[in-house]
Amino acid sequence: MGKILVKHFSISIDGFGAGLSQSLENPLGIYGTDLHKWAFVTKTFRTMIGESGGTEGVDNGVFHNTFKNVGAVIMGRNMFGPIRGNWKDVEWKGWWGENPPFHVPVFVLTHHERESMEMKGGTTFNFITSGIKSALEEAKKVAQGKDIVIGGGVSTIRQFLEAGYIDEMEISLSPVFLGSGENLFSGIDMRKLGFNKIVRTVGEGATHFVLTRD
Amino acid sequence: MGKILVKHFSISIDGFGAGLSQSLENPLGIYGTDLHKWAFVTKTFRTMIGESGGTEGVDNGVFHNTFKNVGAVIMGRNMFGPIRGNWKDVEWKGWWGENPPFHVPVFVLTHHERESMEMKGGTTFNFITSGIKSALEEAKKVAQGKDIVIGGGVSTIRQFLEAGYIDEMEISLSPVFLGSGENLFSGIDMRKLGFNKIVRTVGEGATHFVLTRD
Repeated sequence: MGKILVKHFSISIDGFGAGLSQSLENPLGIYGTDLHKWAFVTKTFRTMIGESGGTEGVDNGVFHNTFKNVGAVIMGRNMFGPIRGNWKDVEWKGWWGENPPFHVPVFVLTHHERESMEMKGGTTFNFITSGIKSALEEAKKVAQGKDIVIGGGVSTIRQFLEAGYIDEMEISLSPVFLGSGENLFSGIDMRKLGFNKIVRTVGEGATHFVLTRD
Repeated sequence: MGKILVKHFSISIDGFGAGLSQSLENPLGIYGTDLHKWAFVTKTFRTMIGESGGTEGVDNGVFHNTFKNVGAVIMGRNMFGPIRGNWKDVEWKGWWGENPPFHVPVFVLTHHERESMEMKGGTTFNFITSGIKSALEEAKKVAQGKDIVIGGGVSTIRQFLEAGYIDEMEISLSPVFLGSGENLFSGIDMRKLGFNKIVRTVGEGATHFVLTRD
């Protein structure tokens, strides 16, 4: 069996995993891109978006590792797109274009039904209206023993954490303040949840922590 | 003129600068000592408490730097001791014994008047009942142009931050969760306060950030 993981999820010094006011122009909310600067400059990221160059140090290794042994991805609706309510605009196919970087089945949590979509490169988007437990069961069916990644955003990760489903969590602390936004750990007692094994890895642009349970 | 600083103030990944339930046995609250492990193992700290040995790396340098160019210290009453209300027990002379590690005038914020105390090694404890602005004015009078350090705890630092008095802040992020306690930045928008210059220094046991204003 694979594990249920959060991978390279970036937070600010003040604990925010996304800024306020997510929109088409600001997919990560106001100042949200500051969180991910460490990843954007890596060779792995630049290759993903069809650019050359990029750093090849510790941060690149951490970011590259994100895509290893992944069997399925679960994400919240806000991570999939800025549209709210019914899927009026069924043309929306995620932020990532025709060939998304997942290459595995992706399960999108939503309150509104929608047909599955097959994208290029092996990514399928499946829409789950029956909650996180169902999403996990569906993901397990197709993950072929590989890991299931809880991709985000903050609210989705918090739900999985509080339900006790997460085996391991990898967070990346960026040296920035957001000031406001969605706080990842506020009101969640990670110590009580058992995440007391903490390994730090220092990257060029962020400090990474792998959190596992006792 | 010296600056008004917070120096090497330790927080957890989940943002807490002290645990719950401070007491005589737990001066830093439950799990609070975990925050300071990085400092406790340094040569500077071990020398302070009369022990030999200790590390001499980056963390030691950061901790050693804490005591440089300090003209006065301001602290909250909880940092001075576990006693609340009137100073019934005037025998209490702080956590640090007869020769406290400050060696300069210390101003303790309290609602209850008390006579100043002269300790060994140049530390004096002065009790200020008229608020943080008065404490700052008194500290400036005696600091001889050196820096004034806001020592803590969390509530005191937050008051000085929100009043706009802090020029520079040095925090040390320890790779631990506290789960509960006093959160340093919760509800404080450091970006709006202007703390957008952030320099990271990686120590052996903690990740240090120097925060200055634009």
